[in-house]
Amino acid sequence: MIVRDLNDLKGTERAVSDAKWTSYRLLLADDKMGFSFHITVLEAGSEHTFHYKNHFESVYCMKGKGSITDHGTGETHEIKPGVMYALNLHDKHTLRAEEELHMACCFNPPVTGNEVHQADGSYAAPDDAPAIS
Amino acid sequence: MIVRDLNDLKGTERAVSDAKWTSYRLLLADDKMGFSFHITVLEAGSEHTFHYKNHFESVYCMKGKGSITDHGTGETHEIKPGVMYALNLHDKHTLRAEEELHMACCFNPPVTGNEVHQADGSYAAPDDAPAIS
Repeated sequence: MIVRDLNDLKGTERAVSDAKWTSYRLLLADDKMGFSFHITVLEAGSEHTFHYKNHFESVYCMKGKGSITDHGTGETHEIKPGVMYALNLHDKHTLRAEEELHMACCFNPPVTGNEVHQADGSYAAPDDAPAIS
Repeated sequence: MIVRDLNDLKGTERAVSDAKWTSYRLLLADDKMGFSFHITVLEAGSEHTFHYKNHFESVYCMKGKGSITDHGTGETHEIKPGVMYALNLHDKHTLRAEEELHMACCFNPPVTGNEVHQADGSYAAPDDAPAIS
């Protein structure tokens, strides 16, 4: 059994910050669960466009308020506690935080922890897994 | 993109209750994400022994207070907001809710929604996946 406290990850390499968001990687690929699990905090007033061409991701809102726009359909959905979105079609999307958002995120394949967002908003596929899209 | 609100699942077949817990299945196997994602609420004062022989599960505490005992090692860990446990060894465990617990749970392989807890505390392996243990 692995037991980890988000508060113990602050200041470690498992707490990753980029422009206006911080992600706490509670599970990564080397934990061998078949998925990774992150808590991500997005700054109030921030807007983020991502396109995970090589990963499926689900995101559950625990706290805060915002919206998500699906670039494929043009639809915008409200984000509030209790709402989950799942990028089952590797959907390119824009997430907006009206208030600070606290999100619980699962990735398949699991993130290794070494990825950076590429210019197209994606993470590269892991070396040991074929690209999905 | 799939968007679901936990509050819309109440009273549907995606809200599953057993003795002293309710699980809201926001993602199941047929969503084809490669994992399932559930929000589970455990009643204050309740105690639960599970042994997922055929699944990996991670559980993140969003709200409440309790403890978990790993039957393999005998160790007991505090459960509070920010703490995650991951059953990477299919660990038999007892979870206690001192206060009502709100947990975000990921399963691999994904739960189909038709499982029931068997006498040994496990879910059966999905028909279309080999048993892991």
